[in-house]
Amino acid sequence: MHKPCRRIWVTLLVFCSITVFAQPKPRARDLGIPFDGNPGTWNAITDVKGVEVGHTTLISGEGKLKVGEGPVRTGVTAILPRGKNSRDAVFAGWFSLNGNGEMTGAHWVEDSGFLNGPVMTTNTHSVGVVHDAVIQWKVKRGEPDMESYWWSLPVVAETWDGVLNDINGFHVKADDAIHALESAASGPVAEGNVGGGTGMICNEFKGGIGTASRVLSKKEGGYTIGVLVQCNYGDRNQLRIAGIPVGREIPASKIWDDDTGSIIVVVATDAPLIPTQLKRLARRVSLGLGRDGSYSGNGSGDLFIAFSTANPEAISSKGVRHLTMLPNDDLSPLFLATVQATEEAVINSMIAAETMTGINGKTVIALPHDKLQEVLRKYNRLTK
Amino acid sequence: MHKPCRRIWVTLLVFCSITVFAQPKPRARDLGIPFDGNPGTWNAITDVKGVEVGHTTLISGEGKLKVGEGPVRTGVTAILPRGKNSRDAVFAGWFSLNGNGEMTGAHWVEDSGFLNGPVMTTNTHSVGVVHDAVIQWKVKRGEPDMESYWWSLPVVAETWDGVLNDINGFHVKADDAIHALESAASGPVAEGNVGGGTGMICNEFKGGIGTASRVLSKKEGGYTIGVLVQCNYGDRNQLRIAGIPVGREIPASKIWDDDTGSIIVVVATDAPLIPTQLKRLARRVSLGLGRDGSYSGNGSGDLFIAFSTANPEAISSKGVRHLTMLPNDDLSPLFLATVQATEEAVINSMIAAETMTGINGKTVIALPHDKLQEVLRKYNRLTK
Amino acid sequence: MHKPCRRIWVTLLVFCSITVFAQPKPRARDLGIPFDGNPGTWNAITDVKGVEVGHTTLISGEGKLKVGEGPVRTGVTAILPRGKNSRDAVFAGWFSLNGNGEMTGAHWVEDSGFLNGPVMTTNTHSVGVVHDAVIQWKVKRGEPDMESYWWSLPVVAETWDGVLNDINGFHVKADDAIHALESAASGPVAEGNVGGGTGMICNEFKGGIGTASRVLSKKEGGYTIGVLVQCNYGDRNQLRIAGIPVGREIPASKIWDDDTGSIIVVVATDAPLIPTQLKRLARRVSLGLGRDGSYSGNGSGDLFIAFSTANPEAISSKGVRHLTMLPNDDLSPLFLATVQATEEAVINSMIAAETMTGINGKTVIALPHDKLQEVLRKYNRLTK
Amino acid sequence: MHKPCRRIWVTLLVFCSITVFAQPKPRARDLGIPFDGNPGTWNAITDVKGVEVGHTTLISGEGKLKVGEGPVRTGVTAILPRGKNSRDAVFAGWFSLNGNGEMTGAHWVEDSGFLNGPVMTTNTHSVGVVHDAVIQWKVKRGEPDMESYWWSLPVVAETWDGVLNDINGFHVKADDAIHALESAASGPVAEGNVGGGTGMICNEFKGGIGTASRVLSKKEGGYTIGVLVQCNYGDRNQLRIAGIPVGREIPASKIWDDDTGSIIVVVATDAPLIPTQLKRLARRVSLGLGRDGSYSGNGSGDLFIAFSTANPEAISSKGVRHLTMLPNDDLSPLFLATVQATEEAVINSMIAAETMTGINGKTVIALPHDKLQEVLRKYNRLTK
Repeated sequence: MHKPCRRIWVTLLVFCSITVFAQPKPRARDLGIPFDGNPGTWNAITDVKGVEVGHTTLISGEGKLKVGEGPVRTGVTAILPRGKNSRDAVFAGWFSLNGNGEMTGAHWVEDSGFLNGPVMTTNTHSVGVVHDAVIQWKVKRGEPDMESYWWSLPVVAETWDGVLNDINGFHVKADDAIHALESAASGPVAEGNVGGGTGMICNEFKGGIGTASRVLSKKEGGYTIGVLVQCNYGDRNQLRIAGIPVGREIPASKIWDDDTGSIIVVVATDAPLIPTQLKRLARRVSLGLGRDGSYSGNGSGDLFIAFSTANPEAISSKGVRHLTMLPNDDLSPLFLATVQATEEAVINSMIAAETMTGINGKTVIALPHDKLQEVLRKYNRLTK
Repeated sequence: MHKPCRRIWVTLLVFCSITVFAQPKPRARDLGIPFDGNPGTWNAITDVKGVEVGHTTLISGEGKLKVGEGPVRTGVTAILPRGKNSRDAVFAGWFSLNGNGEMTGAHWVEDSGFLNGPVMTTNTHSVGVVHDAVIQWKVKRGEPDMESYWWSLPVVAETWDGVLNDINGFHVKADDAIHALESAASGPVAEGNVGGGTGMICNEFKGGIGTASRVLSKKEGGYTIGVLVQCNYGDRNQLRIAGIPVGREIPASKIWDDDTGSIIVVVATDAPLIPTQLKRLARRVSLGLGRDGSYSGNGSGDLFIAFSTANPEAISSKGVRHLTMLPNDDLSPLFLATVQATEEAVINSMIAAETMTGINGKTVIALPHDKLQEVLRKYNRLTK
Repeated sequence: MHKPCRRIWVTLLVFCSITVFAQPKPRARDLGIPFDGNPGTWNAITDVKGVEVGHTTLISGEGKLKVGEGPVRTGVTAILPRGKNSRDAVFAGWFSLNGNGEMTGAHWVEDSGFLNGPVMTTNTHSVGVVHDAVIQWKVKRGEPDMESYWWSLPVVAETWDGVLNDINGFHVKADDAIHALESAASGPVAEGNVGGGTGMICNEFKGGIGTASRVLSKKEGGYTIGVLVQCNYGDRNQLRIAGIPVGREIPASKIWDDDTGSIIVVVATDAPLIPTQLKRLARRVSLGLGRDGSYSGNGSGDLFIAFSTANPEAISSKGVRHLTMLPNDDLSPLFLATVQATEEAVINSMIAAETMTGINGKTVIALPHDKLQEVLRKYNRLTK
Repeated sequence: MHKPCRRIWVTLLVFCSITVFAQPKPRARDLGIPFDGNPGTWNAITDVKGVEVGHTTLISGEGKLKVGEGPVRTGVTAILPRGKNSRDAVFAGWFSLNGNGEMTGAHWVEDSGFLNGPVMTTNTHSVGVVHDAVIQWKVKRGEPDMESYWWSLPVVAETWDGVLNDINGFHVKADDAIHALESAASGPVAEGNVGGGTGMICNEFKGGIGTASRVLSKKEGGYTIGVLVQCNYGDRNQLRIAGIPVGREIPASKIWDDDTGSIIVVVATDAPLIPTQLKRLARRVSLGLGRDGSYSGNGSGDLFIAFSTANPEAISSKGVRHLTMLPNDDLSPLFLATVQATEEAVINSMIAAETMTGINGKTVIALPHDKLQEVLRKYNRLTK
């Protein structure tokens, strides 16, 4: 009998949850894949000061699918714009490149201009439980929303892991979401088969969580852009790495017929942007995906949210707020950084992910590092 | 000890759940309030053939708030465009007049042009459980989505009943949502303190569920428009009935300082409209609310969805679809009917609602029928 | 021979252009029509400090339509957020209730969050000439856009005056647009058959330009909301004044079958709102039109733009901008004021407009003041 | 004295207007640049049956800028969805990736779902004259809109050619627009320095008009996608061709600091798509630009429109329309084709464009074919 191990993640963290500490695994640029721009310390969304990320990873069971029993290959990821101990909101904007997915809370992000709580990512059929869990978590902390409303409209997004995971078994529980929140930390971010990304597939290779960052030059303001993706989209034939359509030169079993799946992208920055500007930032994610070969197929839920950690207390209702705003004329370097970090975060998710076997013995292979290097070398596109 | 009675709604339906059968209670027009246009048989959203509505009403406990114990004044309403036994989708469009609320599934309605399942309404902090329950319900019926996808993106909307209801006690359970789905029926629709509307407040009087319909003349195509509202918005001072600002002439205790609350509006039609046209229909709801005096305050989540029951099998992926579409030139009567039915459905929700006492003994009074008639008579705006 | 008199408006201003000085004509509230809220000094958009309005009115010719010769019943109105001598931009947002109309420049308002120049209103077939004229006017002043771009994306909106005016004769010339800009002033705003509103029809009575304003209480911040409409929409049967469907009780010849026409609405405020908030303000215009009975028919181009004169130099690209922003929690009174001022501005346009005879002797009658008062008195809705 | 030659384009077409007949010039794929997918007969938007394209090219004068006199390097391009002799409309949708540009008529495309007339492209400061010219052209043909309205809301888009062209001299005249309309034809489409693209700059090389097409396999429905771009965006450092950042390896003088400029993209298809689906098609253009390295800088007006020539007479108001619609499940190949054709059309515009000297002797060089081939060969990305 294969019980999901969520009940034991506290004591047996090492077995069922990949920790938030950095892995010694190579990342995309360690393999010699060329990327433009200058990454931050961890080349992660956490390079934006204050941002914390937590994962709950649920892996248990093997073999034949028994709905409700497993196998379980799923999880939850929490991204907290100002860290888990802050109750302050951030300015935010969002964009839907293809709406075949869920991102709850988006209507109020759109109109209020604020993201007031974490962004949670999980599997498609666990959106509800995670949604309610965020409210429970807030209530337990005695937290009315910072807006002085008494209600919460959590932001929960998803991609579909039903190829590997018993998605209709509803294995994610409220405590799993709360664990992701409570374990969130700054520093390096675990990538690949972790958190909400555990069972995901990207360009028909194993995918999952990926992240990257860019730091602008001093002349451009010195701001940081961090991107985190839960990557589950794509068509191997279209996959481009460093501009090369490498997918078609690396054999793997066909998983779907077109760009099915989905990708959730979270963009963080410390640049003082107002919501209108953050919406534009979110829209640039499309161009990063374009570089990686995405064509956003009908079945893909491609939903992006961007926030700025500048302007603390902007949401306070205690009198007229005093804000800072970057001139529109200074946005282009941030747009470019968003494109670059998105391009890299997607590849990072695939480089970190490991081959996984899930329901009914279905195996999705990791993108083979050596084969990838071989193809890029053929095109003179490897830096080492 | 005040346990919510959800576990006994099957056997004790009469005590804790207002049934879906029509009440002998008067409706707005029975009181002599003048409304334009020609309503359908039941003056309800169910006048659109195929549409079914089901409520689960949870009322239990009294006195002091004990989070998790009650008092409970809440519920779930299910609107099924083609009835609970159909797995076919409908063309749909949606609109956010003010995004301070939740309507999950909206991103895919926007991009696919389809609503593929029920619209559920409940309280703000029960969105998650209802969301997952709809997926469970679909899974139990062995239902892959009609789109031949394997995922579901349920449409669940909410308003906030925390003045009367122990909203942080999470009293709505998955079974309550499923009960609303399974008990859905055509015919008269229960209004007022039922289903998702149980604990709601409208223009500082007791609100809840309301409905109305319009049938176009033969020359205009003979189509039906049905509207259902979960009404929880508004400011008594602005309330207009039959154009008269009656609210300020009917004393009631102040509940909030401005147009707080929310309103969810579902518009159904049998006219053959494509998604672009349904989005326009949804936008007209604003004008109906305008007639009733709404100014859509910052705290109000005013989210509207419109669907058409024409074009069955439009979602099928078996080859090119053959559709019918009403010319844009013929839309104006449908727009007017939507405005008229919205105007009336809001008033119907208030006329049907009954005075309710909830947490901490807080009482919200029903709009007094006789006093309302008295005011309207003063302005020569009563038809009887 | 009926030549448009545009060549002589400088010397014979009195004959062919109604001046911008206030008329001794009664306005809606002078007739005893009740409106809520507290208007500013002039009950006009110009109550928002800095806002200037200028009209060019072109009236010439009579009798049979000869395309290119007349009769001419048209014009141009210019609204300058910071007055004609400022080159500074304002934060802005816009909304389309029904897109059957033109408002150029809206895409950049949407993305930049700025309105960088005047809002011009004219007839549908003169959008182009006015568009180019605004660029010429800027070029002549040696003005690169404040954004330090070298291009201009003028905001020009329109409604259709082809019932009374030889609209395909293209009688508006670049100089007419420039005259509207150069003659713009603060103070009372001429209403009715002036400027872009000259030949317009509102609810099947003579319409045109209307304006109104509201001043919030000190407790609410003391801000001003000003609204200006170019009113050409509506269906007499639906027209509500003070909530009473007066249109159907005042005989007039039928002009169209449904809510044809259009309405352009400009909302100004001195409250420190950012673009996200101004977009929400623009959306509230719908609720004001709802109060007046609009259902926004298919043929109606209902386009609204809102701007804030706070935050001067926000558009400057000289380093990080320092802004002020009203908390979202404080927006509701501004939303209500927008609804109220819109409701009144529409009625003001009809009260000010005078019966006009245009092409082929077609006459559109003004809303008869005495008859209107008689109807409102019957419903006990006249304040005097 | 340098007069623009527009007065003589009829007789001296060969000197001042590049004809619409195909040039023997190589196109991108002739140089061995690899592109995916299967192009149509002309690898042009005109591969979609019925689509016609016409250019008016205005080139005259040299040397120092004298505003109003020249030098002139500009023009107009007309794209007619069903050809110049049809008065029927097409279903359409549009998208703004970055709104720093103009596309008039978009609001009604959005709401009506129809494009009712040509798409015109020109320079930024000639939008007005072209807008009015389209109305004149319609009026001359005795054409009320097919919608049976009496007004026109032309679609006119622009990019800015002020580096090479005396843009404030307003050299485009109404007759130039009408000439583009009247000379429109099917067959090969002239690219590069023609029509609206005459003075445009793309990725800091000479740009202009480009086009490409894709034909789906029989299994995918056999539909055609055609794309036409007026290409004026981009940053040489980011330019990617066949995925290789070639721009930084080909020396050229710096023109701007970031992704300034703009790009207008028109997507045509014969697949039976409804407006919701066409809007999604338009959004995919972003992904094609992403492949070419765009990051859509703040100064870039990136506006896209997509239409379908299927469903003739859909706009007719004579009773309920009978339509065909491709299932959403079948859209992915069309999305991919749009991405591929966009990727190629941009490169085609640069390959076709020739070095041009404009105002004040400013020269913008064409992308050197041999140097480009050399770079691609280095990366093993040349097919010949």
